[in-house]
Amino acid sequence: MTMTSLLAAEQPLATLPRTFMLRQYMRVRAYSLELAAPLSAEDQCVQSMPDASPTKWHLAHTTWFFETLLLGPHAPAYRPFNERYAYLFNSYYETLGPRHPRPRRGLLTRPSLEEIHAYRHYVDAAMEDLIENCDARLWLELRPLLLLGLNHEQQHQELLLTDILHVLSCNPLLPAYRKGDDKDSLSPSLDAAPGPVWLEFPGAAAAIGSDAPGDDEFAFDNETPRHDVLLQPYQLGSRLVTCGEYAQFIGDGGYRQAGLWLSDGWAAVQAQGWQAPAYWVAGGGSGADAADWQVFGLQGLRPLAPSAPVTNLSFYEAAAYAEWAGARLPTEFEWEAAARDLRISQATGHAWQWTRSSYDPYPGYHPPAGAVGEYNGKFMVGQLVLRGSSFATPPGHTRVTYRNFFPPGARWQFSGLRLAKDKPC
Amino acid sequence: MTMTSLLAAEQPLATLPRTFMLRQYMRVRAYSLELAAPLSAEDQCVQSMPDASPTKWHLAHTTWFFETLLLGPHAPAYRPFNERYAYLFNSYYETLGPRHPRPRRGLLTRPSLEEIHAYRHYVDAAMEDLIENCDARLWLELRPLLLLGLNHEQQHQELLLTDILHVLSCNPLLPAYRKGDDKDSLSPSLDAAPGPVWLEFPGAAAAIGSDAPGDDEFAFDNETPRHDVLLQPYQLGSRLVTCGEYAQFIGDGGYRQAGLWLSDGWAAVQAQGWQAPAYWVAGGGSGADAADWQVFGLQGLRPLAPSAPVTNLSFYEAAAYAEWAGARLPTEFEWEAAARDLRISQATGHAWQWTRSSYDPYPGYHPPAGAVGEYNGKFMVGQLVLRGSSFATPPGHTRVTYRNFFPPGARWQFSGLRLAKDKPC
Amino acid sequence: MTMTSLLAAEQPLATLPRTFMLRQYMRVRAYSLELAAPLSAEDQCVQSMPDASPTKWHLAHTTWFFETLLLGPHAPAYRPFNERYAYLFNSYYETLGPRHPRPRRGLLTRPSLEEIHAYRHYVDAAMEDLIENCDARLWLELRPLLLLGLNHEQQHQELLLTDILHVLSCNPLLPAYRKGDDKDSLSPSLDAAPGPVWLEFPGAAAAIGSDAPGDDEFAFDNETPRHDVLLQPYQLGSRLVTCGEYAQFIGDGGYRQAGLWLSDGWAAVQAQGWQAPAYWVAGGGSGADAADWQVFGLQGLRPLAPSAPVTNLSFYEAAAYAEWAGARLPTEFEWEAAARDLRISQATGHAWQWTRSSYDPYPGYHPPAGAVGEYNGKFMVGQLVLRGSSFATPPGHTRVTYRNFFPPGARWQFSGLRLAKDKPC
Amino acid sequence: MTMTSLLAAEQPLATLPRTFMLRQYMRVRAYSLELAAPLSAEDQCVQSMPDASPTKWHLAHTTWFFETLLLGPHAPAYRPFNERYAYLFNSYYETLGPRHPRPRRGLLTRPSLEEIHAYRHYVDAAMEDLIENCDARLWLELRPLLLLGLNHEQQHQELLLTDILHVLSCNPLLPAYRKGDDKDSLSPSLDAAPGPVWLEFPGAAAAIGSDAPGDDEFAFDNETPRHDVLLQPYQLGSRLVTCGEYAQFIGDGGYRQAGLWLSDGWAAVQAQGWQAPAYWVAGGGSGADAADWQVFGLQGLRPLAPSAPVTNLSFYEAAAYAEWAGARLPTEFEWEAAARDLRISQATGHAWQWTRSSYDPYPGYHPPAGAVGEYNGKFMVGQLVLRGSSFATPPGHTRVTYRNFFPPGARWQFSGLRLAKDKPC
Ligand SMILES: [Fe+3]
Ligand SMILES: [Fe+3]
Ligand SMILES: [Fe+3]
Ligand SMILES: [Fe+3]
Repeated sequence: MTMTSLLAAEQPLATLPRTFMLRQYMRVRAYSLELAAPLSAEDQCVQSMPDASPTKWHLAHTTWFFETLLLGPHAPAYRPFNERYAYLFNSYYETLGPRHPRPRRGLLTRPSLEEIHAYRHYVDAAMEDLIENCDARLWLELRPLLLLGLNHEQQHQELLLTDILHVLSCNPLLPAYRKGDDKDSLSPSLDAAPGPVWLEFPGAAAAIGSDAPGDDEFAFDNETPRHDVLLQPYQLGSRLVTCGEYAQFIGDGGYRQAGLWLSDGWAAVQAQGWQAPAYWVAGGGSGADAADWQVFGLQGLRPLAPSAPVTNLSFYEAAAYAEWAGARLPTEFEWEAAARDLRISQATGHAWQWTRSSYDPYPGYHPPAGAVGEYNGKFMVGQLVLRGSSFATPPGHTRVTYRNFFPPGARWQFSGLRLAKDKPC
Repeated sequence: MTMTSLLAAEQPLATLPRTFMLRQYMRVRAYSLELAAPLSAEDQCVQSMPDASPTKWHLAHTTWFFETLLLGPHAPAYRPFNERYAYLFNSYYETLGPRHPRPRRGLLTRPSLEEIHAYRHYVDAAMEDLIENCDARLWLELRPLLLLGLNHEQQHQELLLTDILHVLSCNPLLPAYRKGDDKDSLSPSLDAAPGPVWLEFPGAAAAIGSDAPGDDEFAFDNETPRHDVLLQPYQLGSRLVTCGEYAQFIGDGGYRQAGLWLSDGWAAVQAQGWQAPAYWVAGGGSGADAADWQVFGLQGLRPLAPSAPVTNLSFYEAAAYAEWAGARLPTEFEWEAAARDLRISQATGHAWQWTRSSYDPYPGYHPPAGAVGEYNGKFMVGQLVLRGSSFATPPGHTRVTYRNFFPPGARWQFSGLRLAKDKPC
Repeated sequence: MTMTSLLAAEQPLATLPRTFMLRQYMRVRAYSLELAAPLSAEDQCVQSMPDASPTKWHLAHTTWFFETLLLGPHAPAYRPFNERYAYLFNSYYETLGPRHPRPRRGLLTRPSLEEIHAYRHYVDAAMEDLIENCDARLWLELRPLLLLGLNHEQQHQELLLTDILHVLSCNPLLPAYRKGDDKDSLSPSLDAAPGPVWLEFPGAAAAIGSDAPGDDEFAFDNETPRHDVLLQPYQLGSRLVTCGEYAQFIGDGGYRQAGLWLSDGWAAVQAQGWQAPAYWVAGGGSGADAADWQVFGLQGLRPLAPSAPVTNLSFYEAAAYAEWAGARLPTEFEWEAAARDLRISQATGHAWQWTRSSYDPYPGYHPPAGAVGEYNGKFMVGQLVLRGSSFATPPGHTRVTYRNFFPPGARWQFSGLRLAKDKPC
Repeated sequence: MTMTSLLAAEQPLATLPRTFMLRQYMRVRAYSLELAAPLSAEDQCVQSMPDASPTKWHLAHTTWFFETLLLGPHAPAYRPFNERYAYLFNSYYETLGPRHPRPRRGLLTRPSLEEIHAYRHYVDAAMEDLIENCDARLWLELRPLLLLGLNHEQQHQELLLTDILHVLSCNPLLPAYRKGDDKDSLSPSLDAAPGPVWLEFPGAAAAIGSDAPGDDEFAFDNETPRHDVLLQPYQLGSRLVTCGEYAQFIGDGGYRQAGLWLSDGWAAVQAQGWQAPAYWVAGGGSGADAADWQVFGLQGLRPLAPSAPVTNLSFYEAAAYAEWAGARLPTEFEWEAAARDLRISQATGHAWQWTRSSYDPYPGYHPPAGAVGEYNGKFMVGQLVLRGSSFATPPGHTRVTYRNFFPPGARWQFSGLRLAKDKPC
């Protein structure tokens, strides 16, 4: 599983040759299949909750995206692989017509996995032809859509992993996605990061967000426009909160003290019976000791690793932990300013970091016209921003301006936290 | 798909040689696999509603039944194929320990279908050895359990078909279970039965139910004990209500006239938006004409066959139709007395027939001790009795005393109706 | 609260003079107000669950019944008190037009209680005029409707009590409906009945049900027609099961042994967390001892009376208790035959007695035409029959053929049980 | 209904004499009773949805607040009116012990309304004594709590009105809270505000929020601390969106165009069947014309007033309207900066104005210690900020820094909108 960054080219995007982009396309597409390879057709078909989609559906939907947004409008000779797939594999684009209900994606035993593989090959062939052979004017138009399609598929690659982990967690046998040693990239880092220490950051007007689409980088529309935000002096933990630290919170009765929790969070604790992060399996004891727990992950059930970043937390749990620790969650602006500063460790590649920022539009944001305008903008209410990236984020799919977002109760993502504090006067 | 009746032997059960019983075992077991054969591993894994189980689960659960009730207690050298299967494939036997929640059976992508096939082979080998080699005293004890296990598997064979049909019906592509011509046994009869005419039956004390377990027949405990019931003079329709007749009910506004319905039935019509039997697909028109409909079945979507018995009705719909037709549903006692009389056609092999009888215990009924006592008795509330059998009932799994039962709103079974009337004075 | 039986006249109904019927009307109507008198306007307005209606609604609905079925069609000069009440106070009569949703009856703060009182007076005046002054031919037609209306109001009188008890039970203050001494008719008998002993009844063809409407008695349509049922020899407990006996069932782990319960019953125990009958309040101890409990009733919270009949049981609990006691519930036919025999004590006036009979139509039953046909018939599915009557049943509203019915999980009625057994051979 | 502003004193708060504060206390307390006066005991008791509380509960809970936070800790001789009220009338303070479940507040027919009135008098007497007679040191401590209690009661005064309106709207009779002429303060302004015109505001660092608790003003903790926010140049509509304008949105198919809506908003439109603001009653026609509608309000059902500000919108509807109008909602910061500028009309006293700002904590915010810390802070997730105030907001309960907040789907508040736009370049 080696993959160089999607954006590793040292040239501005606009001047990248088509051959480079074609290679990127092939790499990204191949990586999806690589992720699905350890799974049987059965594994790839079922859906364990409405929020999580089957592997097969991810493989088909990402293909549908290229078919619908690039081939359909821009490749005159292209004929859809199957007219019905527009209905089956549209996720949420109202502009693109009706669609199969999300909670019923797991009922699609047909088309079979083999048919979806054939669908991917069919679309890939057409895409490769389009990339190589379209005229220069069209290429300028297609390039940003191609980049969007590749970034879209990368988002689904991480979802494929979080979703299959949820499926497997529902099986009393707790089967592993795949066996692997600790160095495997698809597991949390077990090496202790030093610290934590509090890093200080000054009050300042910080430039936040991206100016893309420009000539030299890709960003989703929700990262734009770039604008200044005034920050008060603040402190950030130098590294992420670990499983060992989180076990102390549990042992100290963190899940039993209403005063630590937001109101909706406390309601969730009681309604769902939360006593630990998702996928933590109690092994006896008070829970305060790391040895009291096992954690189910992509490699199966393993002893809790005290120095690994804690993941699979809801926002509510992250906020309660921070309150217990006498701290708070950072705003997404504090996080971004610090990440640009390069002083925090584990900024990316370990766990998504819940921020204290609701997912609101940036000043001056407006979604683009057409179907792609539904990509991000219409979800800007009721969700919280996560920053950074996780061990399961595909290589290259990381940016300091990246805004991931989930509802505050979501726990099936590789979501953890970093502490923040106001600067003491 | 040729199978002689499970009970076609002309001798009393007690004297059947083991070789005969072994052959029966092999036939029944093979038939389950035969039914599953047209389905992919994906098809066999998913669950489309809590009431309906995955094919793979049916294959495993019927195997678990033999393992748990025969091999475990009676084959000393037997070792379970997998200790965890007791949890995964116990359906509802409290006596036999905790079990995987019914609504989550579809999440069991593991064990794989291949593993379940291996499980079946493993248990079959042990069962064959047990049947052939146990001592004579044990054989006397095992024979009724063996018969129960075979009848149990036959029940699941029909459920396998009704359940997979529900899965396929949830797929917008409406894939066929298998293509086949009209003569195939797994579709409703398309040949018109003559009539209907009203057949008259006298008032009488009728012997109802079975005296099994005796030496010469098998019956489930819920068919016992045999007892007399007083019947008033009555009339029965000579054949089942057809799809064409039912379309007239629809066309006459049957689903819009509250006065035809039981109160709970009318609530279901409104809450579920029922406008026709399950699996009927409207093709325009008022619905009164057979040509206005297609029907989804095991062979896929086909034009409505006016002379075929209507199926996939709830009890509520059957009762409303009868009211509309100026008739009523028969009691299960009227049905049984008439069926013994051999004058009604389509008594079995076409569609289960809702009766106006709640599923109550017969006088003197008490469930047997132990786990097998949970087979039927604990479900004797809130359900209605269906009599006869359907085109999907396995060959030989039919008796005049057979009591099938489902909640009044169930529509995924091959359930239809036959009309009854009080005898006019 | 003295009231002679509604049917205490020693003459056949048909010959009763209008003055007698008028006096009955006035008595029944007055009794409803008497029952409501201890309650504030607030008490009479709220609704604590969809199944239970506010007192004020009962007062209005029973009035609407006379207005709609008698005055409207038969009193030419009658003008409705308020045209909108037809919508507000129709309970479930589809024939009579749309109606206010049942779960929202408690939102009707208007019309005020005073307005409902005025409504009652207005209708009473018109009814009295109609009874006294209609011509003889019309009187023959009205008399059965009048009887139906009075029996209807009596049914609601008991519901008024069960429903307000549920309201009060939802209040943490557990206020009493009214204070009263033990001799009050609105509390369970505290005097121990002797026994129990097993009373034997022979196998026989028993006449079941009523021939009403005849000239000499009233019965609801669901009690008709009279017909013979074959009974096997059986035994009945001479009296009802007491609270003290039921506490032993609890103390013996009755609510924790799945094997005692019907499948739906066990599911209810777990889903609802049942550990005792409704309104039993644990006071410590194992629960086996009567002193471990208090019981909330119309007189408030009082110590459990060991010799009082247990009430507020679901059918599931009654059936589980019987199983635990090595017995069963009687069928409604066994009950009726025994009650005619006059050998059982506490047959009526203590607690409704769950039977093992589903609420199915009698042979030859068909609901009458028109709105009154909706009174009983459309509820004949999914419910169980209770026989006898309770301490809260209005005087005179008791018959050996009376069929009360509720869903198996209902616990807010004064429902208890009497044991039965097959006769040992 | 005349009431001078709670904070109309021209002196700093800290120097206000006790007599002034006592008068304020009496006025605020009296106003609650004045608002309840048109309602019967029945009206004041019921609860029409979990979000909305009964009038009687509001009257008791606001009293409990003074009893619990002032009298209990600070008046040594005070004895609670009723020990059980702590359980009944605690709203959501975990610190203060368990409480009656919110969705069941409407079941509290007892204590009666009369008892709650007695409770209020009892607490008022004790409070008046405390205010007049406590020593000077304690007075300094109590004054901010007293102010909090008064502002708390004022918040509930508006909720009392929105909640009873919801109750009345559930009654098919649509009774008026009270009849009144158009000039009554408890109805939306019917006089057309001029415009709208776009008012321009420059980009700037704007001071946002309050420095309270200082010596000279009251603010809730969620309005603090004051801090600077960078604003881009923007435009605001000079007045609120009117009912007439909103009818055009409806007539133009606003509720049928998915593209105008946030994803959760569109889901709400479909799940709830929204076709107009809450309390709009269609009278025929396309809906585009003001004459097609009536609006239910505190004065009952009245013709839609085209020039009145639209109210009873969810955030989703406000955002969809803005999108349809080619505009957007303002951020709470833009709103506050503009409101300080005094150029916008209808800033307060007409309708709360949904902003595009999620209800997040201000930089440096931390809730105070103890029970009062639960007042605001624990709700800071999943809600949107509304600014301004409505016609139902009590006199004096208005501040330019005031942050009201509700979930995005809430429609039972007097919530409307004002449009905003980025400044064109
Ligand atoms: Fe997608
Ligand atoms: Fe089974
Ligand atoms: Fe009624
Ligand atoms: Fe409050």
